[in-house]
Amino acid sequence: MSPESGTAAEIVAVGRELLSGHTVDTNSAWLAARLRELGARVTRIVSVDDDPAEIAREIAAARARGARLVITTGGLGPTADDCTLAGVAGALERPLREHAGAVAFVARRYAELAAAGAVADAALNAGRRKMACLPEGAEPIDNPVGTAPGVLIVETTLTLLSLPGVPREMQALFAASAARLRAAIEGPLQFVEREVASGSGDESVIAMAVARVAQAVPGVDLKSLPTTFAPDCDLRVRISARAPEAAEAEARVREAAERLEHELAKLTLGTVSRLRRE
Amino acid sequence: MSPESGTAAEIVAVGRELLSGHTVDTNSAWLAARLRELGARVTRIVSVDDDPAEIAREIAAARARGARLVITTGGLGPTADDCTLAGVAGALERPLREHAGAVAFVARRYAELAAAGAVADAALNAGRRKMACLPEGAEPIDNPVGTAPGVLIVETTLTLLSLPGVPREMQALFAASAARLRAAIEGPLQFVEREVASGSGDESVIAMAVARVAQAVPGVDLKSLPTTFAPDCDLRVRISARAPEAAEAEARVREAAERLEHELAKLTLGTVSRLRRE
Repeated sequence: MSPESGTAAEIVAVGRELLSGHTVDTNSAWLAARLRELGARVTRIVSVDDDPAEIAREIAAARARGARLVITTGGLGPTADDCTLAGVAGALERPLREHAGAVAFVARRYAELAAAGAVADAALNAGRRKMACLPEGAEPIDNPVGTAPGVLIVETTLTLLSLPGVPREMQALFAASAARLRAAIEGPLQFVEREVASGSGDESVIAMAVARVAQAVPGVDLKSLPTTFAPDCDLRVRISARAPEAAEAEARVREAAERLEHELAKLTLGTVSRLRRE
Repeated sequence: MSPESGTAAEIVAVGRELLSGHTVDTNSAWLAARLRELGARVTRIVSVDDDPAEIAREIAAARARGARLVITTGGLGPTADDCTLAGVAGALERPLREHAGAVAFVARRYAELAAAGAVADAALNAGRRKMACLPEGAEPIDNPVGTAPGVLIVETTLTLLSLPGVPREMQALFAASAARLRAAIEGPLQFVEREVASGSGDESVIAMAVARVAQAVPGVDLKSLPTTFAPDCDLRVRISARAPEAAEAEARVREAAERLEHELAKLTLGTVSRLRRE
């Protein structure tokens, strides 16, 4: 483990289907990779129930821990259990109000869907109107796939983006918001990684080599990737670093990789030759 | 949303690979489904970094919120970044100590692996010995797949089980521990669910029917399963209930399903006939 700086981000995935085990949360890993690419560092991912108080508590806690970015997924739809914006409103102490721009967006989307025969009519029923009720001061982001707008709130020390839970909608809205998120990331860090084959299937042997390299090269993260024991298993070690400039991160990763190969050669000589013989 | 009682469980997934987005956390959904089958109710799933302080904070917070079961996954291996047990020890204020039974297990597993040619030798190096250092009073659970024992701690109001992160190991160890977990679940609740086809692709229309049924049938959870808009989409609604006896939960689900079909027939008649015509 290396001490890491950079803009901390937290992800709050909302939905009882995540807690019941019906749905695997693939959104959070996708978002975490995108946030890493933007130069932020995800420090926590949490799944919570469709409950405004729980959602509010997670957002407030993220802010208290110093997260500069909070991304929520899920719970923006028209049904009563979709209550993410109530949670956001509670955490940030902003009342929910109908937003004229969001109403216009929702009305336009349902008009398009009605024209295409996908819905029976375009009238703003209660559920549709609900999707246009945003925390005061929030900005709606047009959803190019579904009907619920994304919601962006920019405060002095916190940028919060609420995205839908349907992956295609979530991904499209994230892409549409990426520039706004980038603006919230102070001193974005370039992430560089490389994987090195260890020549061993035994993590307990690799551990010593990894620990020596981690000590010798500050600011790199080394992680062996355990699978399971097998005589022909060649465990990989992922080496990564973050730095303001990619060249700096690359140099650290390169140095760690060279040292690791040297350490592994010393440590696992016996193992490797034995394994290769079989 | 229905108010739900039952034994609350939380899952703490440990590993920087989850926060970087390299790995999708499939373990937590698997565990959540198994805990549901055992009669518990998962109230939160969190992914945290390989950091004892972060892990300890999450476990302590779960206990403070009233969780009776906490399951951790990941971070039991031999490398320096595997630090889940240090986090558990911190949260529960139990020092880490080498456990004779765990040492014997680890020694036996490496002897077996060495005999099979999967590792070079069976000596207890530092990494292997580390896996046998458990929080005081903990009980090791034999790992039938890998080498790190699972770790069970039973306190008056909290049962904590630490499992490895490799899915095959995690699953095997959970199965080996299920009886112990069941003993910690007071008043286990039987979970019953059914999915109903709504005859509509428009969640904003279904919302009204779902809300009426939720109000009329207490103790059921109704959730429409959004995908995306399409003229031929038939959104499904998942109806579920928990009760001490399966028959009671079944009766509630049946009543809600019948009412929902009735409400949907009223609400979506226009939509359905229009869609079926195309």
